[in-house]
This record gives sequence, structure tokens and C-alpha cells, in this order.
Amino acid sequence: MAQVVADRRDVDFVLHEQLKVENLSRHERFADFGRKTIDLVVSEARNLAIKELLSCQKEADEQGCTFENGTVTVPQSFHRVYELFRQGEWIAMCDDPKWGGQGMPSTVALAANNYFNGANYPFMLHNILSHGAGKLVECFGTDKQKELFLKKMYTGIWGGSMLLTEPEAGSDLGLLTTKAVKNDDGTYSIVGNKIFISSGENDLVENIIHPVLARIEGAPKGTAGISLFLVPKIRVNDDGSLGEFNDVVCTGIEEKMGIHGSPTCSMALGGKGLCRGTLLGKENRGMSAMFVMMNEARLHVGMQGFSCASASYLNALNYARQRVQGKSLTATTKDAPSVPLISHPDIRRILLTMKSYSEGMRSTLFYVGLLEDMVRISDSEEDQRKYQGLIDVLIPVAKGYITDRAFEMCSHGVQVFGGYGFTKEYPQEQLLRDCKITQIYEGTNGIQAMDLLGRKLSLNKGQSFKDLLDEVGKTIDTARQIKELEQIVLSLEKTVLQLKQVAQTLGEALGSENILNAYANAHPFLDVTGDVIMAWMLLWRAVVAVQKIEDKPKKKDLEFYDGQLKSARFFINTVLPVTKGKMDAILFSDTAVVDISEAAFGGK
Amino acid sequence: MAQVVADRRDVDFVLHEQLKVENLSRHERFADFGRKTIDLVVSEARNLAIKELLSCQKEADEQGCTFENGTVTVPQSFHRVYELFRQGEWIAMCDDPKWGGQGMPSTVALAANNYFNGANYPFMLHNILSHGAGKLVECFGTDKQKELFLKKMYTGIWGGSMLLTEPEAGSDLGLLTTKAVKNDDGTYSIVGNKIFISSGENDLVENIIHPVLARIEGAPKGTAGISLFLVPKIRVNDDGSLGEFNDVVCTGIEEKMGIHGSPTCSMALGGKGLCRGTLLGKENRGMSAMFVMMNEARLHVGMQGFSCASASYLNALNYARQRVQGKSLTATTKDAPSVPLISHPDIRRILLTMKSYSEGMRSTLFYVGLLEDMVRISDSEEDQRKYQGLIDVLIPVAKGYITDRAFEMCSHGVQVFGGYGFTKEYPQEQLLRDCKITQIYEGTNGIQAMDLLGRKLSLNKGQSFKDLLDEVGKTIDTARQIKELEQIVLSLEKTVLQLKQVAQTLGEALGSENILNAYANAHPFLDVTGDVIMAWMLLWRAVVAVQKIEDKPKKKDLEFYDGQLKSARFFINTVLPVTKGKMDAILFSDTAVVDISEAAFGGK
Repeated sequence: MAQVVADRRDVDFVLHEQLKVENLSRHERFADFGRKTIDLVVSEARNLAIKELLSCQKEADEQGCTFENGTVTVPQSFHRVYELFRQGEWIAMCDDPKWGGQGMPSTVALAANNYFNGANYPFMLHNILSHGAGKLVECFGTDKQKELFLKKMYTGIWGGSMLLTEPEAGSDLGLLTTKAVKNDDGTYSIVGNKIFISSGENDLVENIIHPVLARIEGAPKGTAGISLFLVPKIRVNDDGSLGEFNDVVCTGIEEKMGIHGSPTCSMALGGKGLCRGTLLGKENRGMSAMFVMMNEARLHVGMQGFSCASASYLNALNYARQRVQGKSLTATTKDAPSVPLISHPDIRRILLTMKSYSEGMRSTLFYVGLLEDMVRISDSEEDQRKYQGLIDVLIPVAKGYITDRAFEMCSHGVQVFGGYGFTKEYPQEQLLRDCKITQIYEGTNGIQAMDLLGRKLSLNKGQSFKDLLDEVGKTIDTARQIKELEQIVLSLEKTVLQLKQVAQTLGEALGSENILNAYANAHPFLDVTGDVIMAWMLLWRAVVAVQKIEDKPKKKDLEFYDGQLKSARFFINTVLPVTKGKMDAILFSDTAVVDISEAAFGGK
Repeated sequence: MAQVVADRRDVDFVLHEQLKVENLSRHERFADFGRKTIDLVVSEARNLAIKELLSCQKEADEQGCTFENGTVTVPQSFHRVYELFRQGEWIAMCDDPKWGGQGMPSTVALAANNYFNGANYPFMLHNILSHGAGKLVECFGTDKQKELFLKKMYTGIWGGSMLLTEPEAGSDLGLLTTKAVKNDDGTYSIVGNKIFISSGENDLVENIIHPVLARIEGAPKGTAGISLFLVPKIRVNDDGSLGEFNDVVCTGIEEKMGIHGSPTCSMALGGKGLCRGTLLGKENRGMSAMFVMMNEARLHVGMQGFSCASASYLNALNYARQRVQGKSLTATTKDAPSVPLISHPDIRRILLTMKSYSEGMRSTLFYVGLLEDMVRISDSEEDQRKYQGLIDVLIPVAKGYITDRAFEMCSHGVQVFGGYGFTKEYPQEQLLRDCKITQIYEGTNGIQAMDLLGRKLSLNKGQSFKDLLDEVGKTIDTARQIKELEQIVLSLEKTVLQLKQVAQTLGEALGSENILNAYANAHPFLDVTGDVIMAWMLLWRAVVAVQKIEDKPKKKDLEFYDGQLKSARFFINTVLPVTKGKMDAILFSDTAVVDISEAAFGGK
């Protein structure tokens, strides 16, 4: 039967053949997660995703959320699905069982999330927000805060959100004005307005716990004076029972291009002077607390974007196999029969583009998950530092590069359907609309690009970026031994060499008078770094495929492995030359972006 | 004041300084269109666009069209705007005054259309369809058909549409099954079902005239047996009065991603056996009649896509000037003030990308308009053939390349707004949604790419493609004389040389066993051809700008001209290296797209 959402064979390939995730079970922490258990988890996630989440994807998009008198109603169907999701204990897959978590490796959780997000990612936003808010409590909460809130959040009895953005403080949180005033009982009175709050208010849960960024009276200006507070919608008594309403009011929800199932709320805190919160972590350390959560959140956003692309690819593939339209270009008679779309070279080019990016993205995201797991189980601090450095460097790629490409892939996925792709009869246009926000929230992709260039390139004195390229080099060294990969190995090797040169040139420019021009090249640098990561992942896959082919696998597996070789060849021979062109342009270092006067942009 | 929709200074620059459109008035046909008249036309169009069309853009998107019992209601506000548009005689701007046209040069009409489409292109679809249907009557109608229908169509008293697509016949019209049976009185009884019919039914006009593709009983299979019929919704008596209902029933409208103001109708013809049409043109020559209209329709679609990008750019530019967010990267103190978005290099990069593409697109589209005008006024058949050849080669670029890039620009235009860009509070997300269909209808961009490679490259034995590159060469030769353009001229020259090589290689492959791989490169070939056209147009603009700067213009003009130099430099130095990479990839000619087995795509 045709697969939807995510290709199970490919999910299994990455987990077991490329990343060998069951090796994690040798460590005590993941001892329960042998191959059988992993496969069971993935199968369960897939079933729930396809039977339940996917079934209400379209309906929820059409129904959307409604706002009336401070109350937000999510799509009706989400209530049932949420109950199932909650009961399946999918919210805190990787967390400590003590708090209601499942203690799963991140790598495996990402596979589950590929299915969940590809099936209905607006629904998933609710859970991701709850989990992220819970994680802040786990990392920075006092014992009492954890006792009162954490298990109920991780088990989905209560929800959570994140109150960061304000009308005048978006990418620049230093401008935020929400105030916190300390009360005699140690709590803080919070007053302020927040916008763009996913799941800030909803009717799925009886209470919502909001981590809130605010400024304590007298705190320094800018980001150095921001603290984090835990602010429940309904106050929680010491015995865990619900108390009075905490003056956290939703004042409206956004009308948006997509993710209609997820309410994007404007929130007013303390309008009646009755909003109380407790400090989460230390005073004025709110931003650094948020940064701890940033990697998880950004990886999730990458997964959301990728999952849209993954679903769009399979839909396009299935449609191209069924839809008969046009004759073969090599037909020799006028009476030649019409053929399925997949026979046409232009459609095959689109499909192979979608396939190779989907595969590269999946490997990249799961690989970051594996690194997270390695950090957790590693005994040596040096290894932990190394793995963490790799994660930190990869995050802007996993969020920024992947969602940029995912949006393009979703656009390709509409094209394959022709006019039907533009209609709501098929899921393609919704995937495109939903995908768009992944390029924007959790830091726009422009911010991701600046993060890679300005912070991550020089992280650990540049060692982490070097470590990453060394990992690429290891795969190249292995692949070099394989005759049939010779040509693409050489090509990737050259590209990596040039990327090193680009990184060095930009890195030096950062500390010079050319800093503005370096940042003008931040996004192109993200693009080319991402391209190299994709090519690496596809070469790595090809190496595994060649080895597996030697074992004379069954026909279906042979076809799959052959598809791996084709993806790698296609990507390295048709995308990397373009990557080279982008790097040539960076190295040429034209300064028009910086030089052009504001007036010369026109429009006045 | 900030401009919206289209930059008037740039519109004027292309009309008067780059293309010198007033030269057309030396010819009798356009004698009335001196500079003053042209400027008046553009000003009137701009006023109507901004005051009326733009004012109901958002409302119409939200309201959409409704279908009930065969009746289609368009957004309420369209009725008033349509009356104004009709009374302004904007429907048939370039056509013979005898039939209600304005006899305007195409170049000028395109400038007007830039404003109309950028302000509200879903509204404009209605007029474009009416005009296109009218054009078919003008080109292929009998005297009687013209007498009965044409003036009422060109003046908007009646509307028109195009009934081509059927559920099983989209890109492949040869599969269509709508039947026509000749009656004793010379009319034909039509029976069939059509889908995706823009403005197929609506409440703006009292009658709708449908050109319909159908197969006469006994006609050959495939496209060789398709005829064109003129089928009114309500029959028209010999004296021009309305007769009986003609059994043309709208059975539903599509729910779509965008262009909500334009009803996309499913149509049933002759369900009660009472649908009558008259032959338009000759039996079995329906496809060639449609092809005559194709250039006009595809140029219009290019204009729609571009106009979305043009509006998105100005919106993004205005927002980037107003929105204060983040500190300057060169700020030296912690207390440095936050600055407008336009100060940030990454935002400037996006804006300059949008600017240079917008400018290149505008010049390309207006240039095709100028060529159309030259065909009309040229005395020599040889010149006419040459100009027509240039038009034919440029059409897939004007439709396919431009709408591909326009969609990307609209996506950039959302990014500049951050989270606000995703909301319906700003027009950016609607422009993105509306723009998407331009990549699909009137032949998907995959079809455009195949048209360029398979038909246009070899048109007139390759002379037309050569003529196009010769025109590029002329600009290069002029620019070569200008010292400050030296570097970018060399760069474009090299790129053009490589494009010739690519064209020759692909052209040869078409006639060889590598035909499938040649077509796998059709879309990349469209991309690189389009890139070269953009670079050409920007260099041409730069040449004009340098000359104007020598005349010591006023400050505001000087800034504008300087902006032209920056666009050219930016595009040629940062986009053309990527173009080179794409050409390298085409020439490398990897065959994975063709080689990969269907099974290896996975998903089963």
C-alpha cells in the first residue's frame, strides 16, 4: 500500500542502518530500547498519526480556532485526538519517568515526531509548547515548582505556552516592557501584553502554565534585565488543587495563513492587577534560561518543516504514480498511450529533488537527536563537549536551512498536482501554508543565519565547526574506498575544502571593518553549509547502501538501496555545483548590499 | 509618501528611459500616445488601482465567492469596482476602437496592468478572461459572431471565459472528451464537463460567452481532432437581444489556497441536451487557435506573478523602514538605540534581492510588450518575423521563470515582516497565496520549461534564440565602453558564452538517445536562461543610469540611478555565479533522474 506522511523504510534505514540507534541500549539509561522496542514505538506513533491525527488535519484547517469573550475554542476533533495522545504518553517521550516521561532516546522520539508532525503539525504545536514549558520547570524550577506543576504538564493534564514576544519586541527581546514587581510573599505581580502566543489559551486543558519573560522593577535595560516567571492561568494551591483565576486574559487570536488548528493568542497579564507569578531560575537570567530551551525548540521547528516536506513528497509521489497525463517523450506513434506523470523527466526531476532533500533532512535531524542522546550517556566530559558543540553548530542548519528547503519542497509538492495542488481537495496546499511559519518563528531564518555565522562558527574557538567538517571527512574517507562512489566523493571533498575557505574568510571578516558585508553573506553561508550537510548525509547513506547491496538483499530492499545511490548522485552532481557558485559569490564579496543608500531602494 | 503596488519612478524609467516607448508615437497607429498621454494613462490606472482595487483586496479574499444552486456570487465590493473598471474602458486597452478598444501600445497597457494586478489580481482575472475570450472572437470569429459578441465583451457588458480543462485532461488536452454534434441549422450541440474555469459563472455580468474546446463526432483522436466553439451562457438572438438559457450550468466552485475573489468553476454543458454553440475558426483547428492566444495569456500570467512580487517588495521596503528592531551590528555601546530593520545587512540582502528581481522582471515584461508593438507597426516582414521570434522565445521566461521567481520574492516579502507576515493583518501572506497559482495555470512551469527547450530553442532553425542572445550582446557591447561597468560586463559576457554552450549541448541531445536527460534539464535550462535575461535587463538599466548620471540629475534621481547600478552589480556578482553552477550541472549531465527506477522512489 502507498505510504503517506513518512516513508517507513527510510525511517528505519536512518534509525537502524545509518545511525544504528539500538547501540544506545548498551547504555543503562536506554537499556529498555532495543530494536524491538524502538520498532514498536515507531509503529505505534505511525498508527496514531495516520489513524487519528491525519484524519482531522483538513477539518481542523477549515474549522480553525475561535475566540469569544476571552475563551479560545480549538477544532472540535482535537479533543478526542488530544485524549488519545495524552493517554499514549507521547508528550514527554524523552523525559524522566519520575515526572511522567518515557525516558526514550531523542533519536527515536524524532522518528515518532516525524509521523505526528507530518500528519497534523498544528495539533502537535499544543503538545510541543506544553512540553517546552514543562522543560523550563524541570531545568530551572524549585522543588516546589516541580512538585506543583511538572507531572501535570508532562502528562498533559495541564498545558503550557511561552510568553516572549511583545508588539514592539519580536526578534529583539531586549525591548520588552512587561513588568514584574516583587510582593511581600515572594511572588511577583506581573503586568504586560504579549502577542503571538501559540496555545496561550485553549479549551483542551483545565489549566495553562505560562513561562513569561518580564523585567523586574529597576532591572538593567536590554536583555541583561530580563527574568523568567512561572505564571499559571489559574492559581495553584499548595496542595495542587486549583485556586482563583490569575488575571491572565486572552484578548484575541490571529487570523493566519496556516496552522489554523493552533491558536495564536494575544495575552494581557495583570489587567486587573491580579496576576501573580513565581520566579523561574534567577533574577535577570531569563534570557539564558530561554537559550537553554532554544536548541530543543529549534530542532522541533526543523522537524515540523521537514515533516511537511516529507508528507508532501509522498503525496506527490503517489499522485505521480496514479495520474495518467501526457505521452512518453520517446513514444514513436501518435496512438501511443498516455502515461503516468512519473514517466515524465520533469516530474522525475521534481520527485528526485524532493526525495533527496527529504532523506538528507531526515538524516540530519535524527543525527542531531543521536548527538543529544550521546551527550546524555557519554562518560567523558570531553566527548560531551564535543557532541554538544556539534549540536550547537547544527541547530541553525536544522532549523533555518531545513525549513527554507522544506518550504521549497512543499511548493514542488503542489506543482506535481498541477491545478489540483492549489485546491483544498488535496493536502498539498495546506502543507505549504502550514510550513511557511516554520521559517519565521523560534527566530526567523535570518536570525538562524546570523547565529551560525556570528556565534556558532567561532564556538569553542572554532573547534565545533571544525569537528563537524571532520565528521564529514570521516564519511568521505570511508566512501573513498568504494569504487562506484569515486566521482561523487571527489566532488564533495572539493566542496568541503571550499567551505573551509569560505568559513575562514567570513570568520576573519567578522573581526574586521567588513563585518557588515560578512553578515550580508550570513544567509548564503547558512545555505552552503546546509548543502554540504545534506550531501554528507546522502553520501553516508550511499556508503551504507553499497555495503548492504553486497549482501544481496531482497528485491525490494535492493530497489531502496539503489534509490539511495541515486539520491546521492543526483544531489552531489546537480546541487553541489550550485553550492560552489554560491561560495564563489561569497568569496567574490560584492558589497552592493552594504553600499546601497537607503534612498536608492526606491519606493518613495 | 511611501509607494505601494509598483514603484512609479521605476515604471517611468522602463517606459521612457530604458524602452523609450514614446518613439512608438512616430507611427500612425500610436500617434495619439505621446509622453503626456502615456503618463496620463499610467496615472489614471494607478489611481484606480490604489483607490479602488487595492481597497477591496483583503475583504474580497476573506469573503471569497459563494455557490448556490448554480449561481456564483463574487465578493460584494467587486460590483462597484467592476463598474468603474468597465466605464474606464480598461478591458480592451490595446484593441481596435471599432470594437470598444483603446488602441494603446501593449507596453503602456502592461504598465497599467502592473498596477491593476498588484492591487487586486483576483479581481483582474475576470477582465483578463473576458478579454481573452473576446480576442478569440476577434481573431477567428465570422463577421456575424463579431457583430453579435465582440463589442459587448470588450466593453465588459458581457463576460467571457475559457473552457479547456476536463477532469482527465489537464496538461494533456488531447485526452478531452467534450462532444459536439452538428445540427441542421449549422450550430453544434455540445455535451461535456469542464473544470478549473475561472469566471465560468459569476454575477458581474448578464451574459458570459464561453470559448469551448470540444471534439466533433468522428474527429481524429488527440489534439488533431479538437475544435473551438463559441457557447454563450444565454443564447443571443440575431438582433443581439438575449434569448433562452443555453444549458451551461455551473456545478460547483473550487475551494482554493488563494485568488478567493475569482470563482474557479466546474461547468456542465448540455446536461439537458440544450447547449448550442457555433464553430469558432475551422473544424479540428481548435488547438492552433488556442495557441494563438497562448502568448497573450502567458504574458498576462507573468504579469500577475510579477505584480504580486512588485507589491510585496514595496510593502516589505516600507515596513523595513518603519519597524525598529535590533541594534546596529556596529554599535559600540550597550545603550545604542534600536534601529529600523533596513539597517540590518540580512534584511538589506533580502530587499536588494527583491528589488533587483522586480526590476529585471518589469523590464522583461515591458520589453515583450514593446516587441508586440513593434510587430504591429513594423513595415518589413523580416522584422516582424524577428520580433515575433523574440516574443516566442521570451514567453516561457516571462511566464515560467518570472512566476517561479515571483513566488520566491513573495516568500521573502513575508520573511521581512517576521511573524506579522504570516498574519492576515498585512497583505504579504495573501500575495504569496495568490501568487502560487501563477506557477501552475496556463501551462505549469514544467510545461513552460519544456516549451522553451523543445519548441522555442529550435524555433526558426534556432535563429530566434540566437537573435535574443544577439540583443543581449548589443547591450554588452555598449556597456563595455563604460569603465565603471567593466567588471560586471565581463561577467555577463562569460555567462552568455556558457549559455550558448548549454543551449547547443541540450539542443543536440534532443535529437539523440539522450532526449530524456535533455528534458530532465528543461527546468534548469529555463532557470539559467531567465537569469541571463534578468542580468541583461539590469545591465541595460545600468547603462542608461550611467548616461543619466553624467547629466547631473537632481538628488532624488541620482539616488534612483545609483540604485540601478547597485541592482546590476548585486545580481551579476551574486546570482550569476549560481547560474554558472547550474550550467555546470547541466553540462555535467548526471543521469540519475532518468536512471532511477520507479520503485526506487520508495513510498510503497
